Amino acid sequence: MTTSDLIDPTASLLPGADTALADLVFHGARTVGRFVDDTVPDDLLQAVHDTVRWGPTANNSGPMRVLVVRSPEARTRLAAHMAEFNRDRVLAAPVTLVVAADTDFHLHLPVLAPHTPTAGDSLAGVPDVRERMARENAWLQTGYLVVGLRAAGLGVGPMTGMDAAGVDAEFFAGTGWRALSVLNVGWPDGEGTDRPRAPRLTWEQVSREA
Amino acid sequence: MTTSDLIDPTASLLPGADTALADLVFHGARTVGRFVDDTVPDDLLQAVHDTVRWGPTANNSGPMRVLVVRSPEARTRLAAHMAEFNRDRVLAAPVTLVVAADTDFHLHLPVLAPHTPTAGDSLAGVPDVRERMARENAWLQTGYLVVGLRAAGLGVGPMTGMDAAGVDAEFFAGTGWRALSVLNVGWPDGEGTDRPRAPRLTWEQVSREA
Repeated sequence: MTTSDLIDPTASLLPGADTALADLVFHGARTVGRFVDDTVPDDLLQAVHDTVRWGPTANNSGPMRVLVVRSPEARTRLAAHMAEFNRDRVLAAPVTLVVAADTDFHLHLPVLAPHTPTAGDSLAGVPDVRERMARENAWLQTGYLVVGLRAAGLGVGPMTGMDAAGVDAEFFAGTGWRALSVLNVGWPDGEGTDRPRAPRLTWEQVSREA
Repeated sequence: MTTSDLIDPTASLLPGADTALADLVFHGARTVGRFVDDTVPDDLLQAVHDTVRWGPTANNSGPMRVLVVRSPEARTRLAAHMAEFNRDRVLAAPVTLVVAADTDFHLHLPVLAPHTPTAGDSLAGVPDVRERMARENAWLQTGYLVVGLRAAGLGVGPMTGMDAAGVDAEFFAGTGWRALSVLNVGWPDGEGTDRPRAPRLTWEQVSREA
């Protein structure tokens, strides 16, 4: 391992894939905190979801849900539950998505998982199992969502510094939705950040052969 | 919402992105259970990781780890901890990856997050917080990993039906690694599955405006 392995995002591009898109989504993309002042249309958010919803989840449960925050009033309500260093970011972004896990996802399984017709009923009495499944699979889908937003040319500023229970009480009372993360979304102003790129661990550092 | 919205994976392709890759990664890709008998080289796994490691995680923690399972002996050890319906799949796949979360990820933060120099020390005494962060962010990275493997032309068969604590004891004793999922990986034989494609929820079903 050399220092350049840790810091050079162009050291290895994905073989067999479109390198421009690999660059757009991974190598060249930064966490964006500075956006141009253009509206992100609902149609574009829907088109991104229409693509990334095909990503795999456990038993096709697809428990990720999205609250779209646009109005000044809704932004103010959300910002009050964010960590202080994230408040201005929520107030300033073109659109902000609260990504949530639906702990009542099992109600959709008769449609989503026709190959396991009793799965929904089996989960009805085990809310702890459902909550774990919902959170894990919604995080997995958040990975697909970040990829899809970037592939559409958008910049993303993901945040978890918040009072998630406060967000739940503010927006999701009476539902099974649980806030996981908050994504500021828009077109990046330049690179979208002034922070130097931080390194990543290498394959040698993160993998082992059994 | 119409039935075709629920089941037609080509109903909407991602605007602004390479539609061939969007098809390869999302619209056209299936969970693969049937692979051709070709070895997946380590170099290719590394190249995929070299791309997807640039995806964002909380405080650049990047806690996802990967155990590469190839030998018949290692497959047998792993299969013993899988749910019965997943055992043959683990024994038959060209290569199997156990995706884990490293609960000791904080030890790397001085390198990975130089902008928050005290973050690693702050997490040293709170193992519960670390475990939650490790699991959430490693699931997020699993989304990036599935995308990267598919973008390289590989098929993926993700599984969570297993005794995760058993896998941890078998392979990760004395480490902070915790098994999250198991991915069978290789080149799909045809579509890689005979199961009809299951539907997905629509944007109208999964989203709300605040």
